Amino acid sequence: MAEETWHELEVVPNKYRDRDYNVNISIPEFTCVCPRTGLPDFATIVINYVPDKYIVELKSLKYYILNYRNLGIFHEEVANRILEDIKRIVKPRKIEVTGDFHPRGGIQTVVTARWPE
Amino acid sequence: MAEETWHELEVVPNKYRDRDYNVNISIPEFTCVCPRTGLPDFATIVINYVPDKYIVELKSLKYYILNYRNLGIFHEEVANRILEDIKRIVKPRKIEVTGDFHPRGGIQTVVTARWPE
Amino acid sequence: MAEETWHELEVVPNKYRDRDYNVNISIPEFTCVCPRTGLPDFATIVINYVPDKYIVELKSLKYYILNYRNLGIFHEEVANRILEDIKRIVKPRKIEVTGDFHPRGGIQTVVTARWPE
Amino acid sequence: MAEETWHELEVVPNKYRDRDYNVNISIPEFTCVCPRTGLPDFATIVINYVPDKYIVELKSLKYYILNYRNLGIFHEEVANRILEDIKRIVKPRKIEVTGDFHPRGGIQTVVTARWPE
Amino acid sequence: MAEETWHELEVVPNKYRDRDYNVNISIPEFTCVCPRTGLPDFATIVINYVPDKYIVELKSLKYYILNYRNLGIFHEEVANRILEDIKRIVKPRKIEVTGDFHPRGGIQTVVTARWPE
Amino acid sequence: MAEETWHELEVVPNKYRDRDYNVNISIPEFTCVCPRTGLPDFATIVINYVPDKYIVELKSLKYYILNYRNLGIFHEEVANRILEDIKRIVKPRKIEVTGDFHPRGGIQTVVTARWPE
Amino acid sequence: MAEETWHELEVVPNKYRDRDYNVNISIPEFTCVCPRTGLPDFATIVINYVPDKYIVELKSLKYYILNYRNLGIFHEEVANRILEDIKRIVKPRKIEVTGDFHPRGGIQTVVTARWPE
Amino acid sequence: MAEETWHELEVVPNKYRDRDYNVNISIPEFTCVCPRTGLPDFATIVINYVPDKYIVELKSLKYYILNYRNLGIFHEEVANRILEDIKRIVKPRKIEVTGDFHPRGGIQTVVTARWPE
Amino acid sequence: MAEETWHELEVVPNKYRDRDYNVNISIPEFTCVCPRTGLPDFATIVINYVPDKYIVELKSLKYYILNYRNLGIFHEEVANRILEDIKRIVKPRKIEVTGDFHPRGGIQTVVTARWPE
Amino acid sequence: MAEETWHELEVVPNKYRDRDYNVNISIPEFTCVCPRTGLPDFATIVINYVPDKYIVELKSLKYYILNYRNLGIFHEEVANRILEDIKRIVKPRKIEVTGDFHPRGGIQTVVTARWPE
Repeated sequence: MAEETWHELEVVPNKYRDRDYNVNISIPEFTCVCPRTGLPDFATIVINYVPDKYIVELKSLKYYILNYRNLGIFHEEVANRILEDIKRIVKPRKIEVTGDFHPRGGIQTVVTARWPE
Repeated sequence: MAEETWHELEVVPNKYRDRDYNVNISIPEFTCVCPRTGLPDFATIVINYVPDKYIVELKSLKYYILNYRNLGIFHEEVANRILEDIKRIVKPRKIEVTGDFHPRGGIQTVVTARWPE
Repeated sequence: MAEETWHELEVVPNKYRDRDYNVNISIPEFTCVCPRTGLPDFATIVINYVPDKYIVELKSLKYYILNYRNLGIFHEEVANRILEDIKRIVKPRKIEVTGDFHPRGGIQTVVTARWPE
Repeated sequence: MAEETWHELEVVPNKYRDRDYNVNISIPEFTCVCPRTGLPDFATIVINYVPDKYIVELKSLKYYILNYRNLGIFHEEVANRILEDIKRIVKPRKIEVTGDFHPRGGIQTVVTARWPE
Repeated sequence: MAEETWHELEVVPNKYRDRDYNVNISIPEFTCVCPRTGLPDFATIVINYVPDKYIVELKSLKYYILNYRNLGIFHEEVANRILEDIKRIVKPRKIEVTGDFHPRGGIQTVVTARWPE
Repeated sequence: MAEETWHELEVVPNKYRDRDYNVNISIPEFTCVCPRTGLPDFATIVINYVPDKYIVELKSLKYYILNYRNLGIFHEEVANRILEDIKRIVKPRKIEVTGDFHPRGGIQTVVTARWPE
Repeated sequence: MAEETWHELEVVPNKYRDRDYNVNISIPEFTCVCPRTGLPDFATIVINYVPDKYIVELKSLKYYILNYRNLGIFHEEVANRILEDIKRIVKPRKIEVTGDFHPRGGIQTVVTARWPE
Repeated sequence: MAEETWHELEVVPNKYRDRDYNVNISIPEFTCVCPRTGLPDFATIVINYVPDKYIVELKSLKYYILNYRNLGIFHEEVANRILEDIKRIVKPRKIEVTGDFHPRGGIQTVVTARWPE
Repeated sequence: MAEETWHELEVVPNKYRDRDYNVNISIPEFTCVCPRTGLPDFATIVINYVPDKYIVELKSLKYYILNYRNLGIFHEEVANRILEDIKRIVKPRKIEVTGDFHPRGGIQTVVTARWPE
Repeated sequence: MAEETWHELEVVPNKYRDRDYNVNISIPEFTCVCPRTGLPDFATIVINYVPDKYIVELKSLKYYILNYRNLGIFHEEVANRILEDIKRIVKPRKIEVTGDFHPRGGIQTVVTARWPE
């Protein structure tokens, strides 16, 4: 696992682009690092999108998620940043990203971002 | 189980066609093959439709699902293809098909297609 | 249990007919017979209605459900027929009937009919 | 427990009456008596209301519910009667009352009344 | 734990303020004191808001919740007061606060306030 | 429901008394009265016994349980008293009685008595 | 479904009789008739046995269970009678039969018989 | 709530002391304070004992548990200390105390002490 | 996926063979074919063993399970045959294999074999 | 998070060493790296031990678990290695360690080691 390299998302052509259909992807094994304490955070990430010309290639998504493993990043940023990256590369018709983080100190946060709003 | 033959869907007349009512069919034992790795995939398929002149004959549906057992096909295609086949043969007033696939590499995908959108 | 006699539904006056309120009745012990195989089918029937002048008398409903115990009838017909019988006798303002059948051959069906649509 | 006396509901002033907010009260220990058989019935009562000038005083509600313990009353009446009593005394902006009764003879009923409809 | 001092909420800048996104915070370890009996009450507090210029700093929220530990306060006030404090300091675009209190005497209450209504 | 009369348990002959087999009876609708506060208590009673010459007649058990509805009695006594009554009348080979009471003031008690110990 | 004929259990040879292994069979769709009221009873039957020379042929078991559909029989007898029939025909090394009946009048019974005790 | 005073446990006579029976008490609303951080800890305490001459008076237990609300104490000590106090005052024949603490930093601890071992 | 070739189990050396420890493997995606009807069966296989010199190589186990995908075999044989194969190749100190099959015709079977008995 | 440094476990004195009591620690956020693929693995680790002179200091345990985050190690080794480290440093009277790993390729493994066996 080379943390030094950033794994970019890849796409494959969408064979059913004449139809608006929905792809929902759950990733219960997301982990990153708290930028203040250096301790790990854990979350389930859920990506929900309607593809246009492309669909996310799932193996590249698995490696893309690895980028965050040793990255210091706040909860509120995680969902927004994943949304931005998928928007830029997969160019979906619409997309929603949710990060449901494990409790810390008895407090659990869920951040949800979508485009278009 | 003859994989060589494609089992076609069959229909029976709908006795209550003066009413829009809903038929929801769950198939938790769907399995197909990943076209890249040759390894099996597993999913629950849910079909939800409003019948017009016909309803799906359930025994033919059981054999139709068997067609996929040794077929190489991507997740995104499964839901769209089942939707197309039921649309063509059963001619429902409306229909939605969902494929909820078992996780692979910690990533779970659910694909949902409907007609009319 | 006399299968030969058909038990008719009975009603009692609705004391609160100046108000639209909802009565939801669940019957998890519904059983009938498959007309093709002669083998029993099992379902949960859910009746949801807004009463007008009458409410269903619950003891007569219990006997009405017994009518189906040794009757050969398809899944799609069960929900539609119960809806028709309640409409005719109880004359509700609106009604929905759902039949959620136990899986057969790995396939589970849920049929939902409502009036007015 | 004095069944002879009817315990009336009491109210306390609502400190946040410039805002429409919601109070939801669940009472899983409701019991009354079937007027036909004299046998006890059990239910969960759920009261959901938006207070105006008053909120329900919870201790008086506990005693109010005791009124029903040895009272013969039908399922359909329970939800409607509690709604009427709260409307008359607490004068909420809106209210919904649900009575979810334990099954009898394999049949479970849930009665829901609301005001305004 | 110094009950004498009131811990004020703190904020951090919202990096994604060009987008309406949602932050949901669950606090299952809320406890306060009943002003009548002096006995402790327990609740799960859920805060749901769309940030504008700021997001809640989570560590300050943990200490803010501690303010209530030995404070006498009614159920209906808790949700409304937390809403007011966050509105004043975090200035969200919209917010909803729910307090789901543990049952007392077989009665459970859930209070929900939102702004704007 | 005549609280004045004590309903005695009744028995029927055990047709399989040459075998030690087990009868487990759950009664989730038990209610009695707290002798201190006069307020109702609720519990699930579980009776587990190996019959000898007799089995409990279930309808008489339903009425026997009604005896407690308006009776003031402590939690610890309920399980012991039901055990004594069944021992005296049904004369089982062995028996265990459990009373699992709904929480009061955040405290839940479960009392279990058996014979022979 | 011919209620007049009694369907006998059938067996097939056990290929692994040099080993004590366990077969556990659950039948959640058991139904019979109460001999007093003529009303149907419902139960889950669980059969657990160690085969000797034979194993139960599962299709014959399905028809054997049908024998009870319109038969008047008490709860306590059901488990004992199924145990006797399997003992006589399948001749297992050991066996346990449980009948877990749906509640009637708020009372649920589970009867468990085993051989050898 | 007077934290300054220590609330002692009280007992009532055991009416069934000729029998070994079991009393199980669950307290899901236990809270104390971490002696290092001053932050609150939460736990479910379970007390399981066989009474001898006395049973725990439940109202005094509720107040006894309040003693810990603002007390700094480690997880491992809580279960052992409650066990010692009940042993000293209630003098049970045997007793087990479990403290199941809410996770902190992703780590959950459960401490179980019993006497006699 | 080449059904024609039988995939043999492979092993790796056990680094902790001076200790009896337990390895439990669950495979919820097992499928084979009913030798009578040619229709697929589905099961969860659970393997529980104490390794001696070797542990099962998990990738070879995944391919070994694939052997059954298009193989006609009875429920009772599946658990016994997997046990025999692991015993022969991995030579564990002890082992138990369970096959928990999806219901067919309302009947669910679980077969459990172990060595040594 | 400094992966280069190995965080050693620390201990604190056990105040109740005259008694055998049990400490159970669950860590649902364990993650390490597969030595073959370089991809992350996830597991819940459960440690159950009877302390002698020392108990595990929980904060040091949190950092000790961090040691594994970027370490390549097989499933079977994880449980055995944690057991060895706790045995060496905490010197408990007895201990059991379980590693319950997330499924990979549809296969889930749970490894359990204990001392003394």
